[in-house]
Amino acid sequence: MPTDAEQACFEAGIKFGSLYHQFAGTPISLESADSLARAMAEAIENQPYCESVTVDIRTDVLEAALAEGAADYTEFTGRFAEIEIVIDYEGNEVVARMEMDDGYPLMRLESIERQ
Amino acid sequence: MPTDAEQACFEAGIKFGSLYHQFAGTPISLESADSLARAMAEAIENQPYCESVTVDIRTDVLEAALAEGAADYTEFTGRFAEIEIVIDYEGNEVVARMEMDDGYPLMRLESIERQ
Amino acid sequence: MPTDAEQACFEAGIKFGSLYHQFAGTPISLESADSLARAMAEAIENQPYCESVTVDIRTDVLEAALAEGAADYTEFTGRFAEIEIVIDYEGNEVVARMEMDDGYPLMRLESIERQ
Amino acid sequence: MPTDAEQACFEAGIKFGSLYHQFAGTPISLESADSLARAMAEAIENQPYCESVTVDIRTDVLEAALAEGAADYTEFTGRFAEIEIVIDYEGNEVVARMEMDDGYPLMRLESIERQ
Repeated sequence: MPTDAEQACFEAGIKFGSLYHQFAGTPISLESADSLARAMAEAIENQPYCESVTVDIRTDVLEAALAEGAADYTEFTGRFAEIEIVIDYEGNEVVARMEMDDGYPLMRLESIERQ
Repeated sequence: MPTDAEQACFEAGIKFGSLYHQFAGTPISLESADSLARAMAEAIENQPYCESVTVDIRTDVLEAALAEGAADYTEFTGRFAEIEIVIDYEGNEVVARMEMDDGYPLMRLESIERQ
Repeated sequence: MPTDAEQACFEAGIKFGSLYHQFAGTPISLESADSLARAMAEAIENQPYCESVTVDIRTDVLEAALAEGAADYTEFTGRFAEIEIVIDYEGNEVVARMEMDDGYPLMRLESIERQ
Repeated sequence: MPTDAEQACFEAGIKFGSLYHQFAGTPISLESADSLARAMAEAIENQPYCESVTVDIRTDVLEAALAEGAADYTEFTGRFAEIEIVIDYEGNEVVARMEMDDGYPLMRLESIERQ
């Protein structure tokens, strides 16, 4: 049987996979970045046990990517955001983050407060 | 060779397919519907030749769907929105709409002003 | 600090969220169900720590949904599949499943073998 | 009123936008590329007026991308495939293609046979 803390970690993973694969590929520009960030956060906050989702667009990375290409938009992918998700499952709080690690968007558990 | 009006229609189709298949499945509630609608519109407006995207959430249909289920959110699908997209390709303006038709989200050309 | 078993649960959640939100909304018919099921499994098996993904299309439910509608395809959603994912994280094996529960596709931890 | 040829072009656009935004972001490796290509083709062939979808994975580009990174998979995006879609709308046949153009996956009309 899983512990409540393990359940909390499972739920945190679901939210990260959901957020990433729902929104990867979305057309994004400097002008539309804010509305995408807000929609990502509010959409995933609907899911069970999800206390909060914070999406920070890495504007400098997005600007640099747009400067390299011929268009004024690109596709949303992990390198354009830092994301924090907080889960509460039966009083067990898990904080998980997505950050770039060696070119990949790494999703990792940052902290667990076990009940 | 395609005419410019045919190109405009092709572009209108791309925008509709993109919008629908990027965002179908997104968790949506009455609280998060507005931010999703705005993100959908602003994301697709980034695409070439796209003059405007209008997403109207059918709040009554969403409310009814949520009342039927056990959760306070559901997955975004075509029956929860009416969408209008305006394309301008070399002066040819195409207006396309998505509306429910016999239970299916039907995407259709509403008008073309040929140059 | 998370335990290895908690990490394994986090990874299992990521895979489920990824699979569901990548593929929800895909056009599916009786003819294309097998290729979609295989692509879902092979795509997610690419992800780290993922030992296996098994996607069983619930053909009877799909047939019934198609019989109700006017078209011979519909959009993939959770009620059309049962999914099992096996994770191995540093010798900790987690089995997770998605099954319908009161009309919702419930993702749950089935077993954990802690190292 | 749109002509049937314009309708055919609109339908071709829908299929391209659908295919791209449904599957962009899918984990892909050399091993899973074939099942993804097949699922993409069969899924979109379900849509109305769609005669055929051909997805050719650009294996050399995928191999090169994987060689650059630390993982043995990456996310599906337009540079990894060439795609041809054939539409028949009331006898009007449209062939559309997606190919890379200056670093962007360009979707374009290749030919129209008007009735």
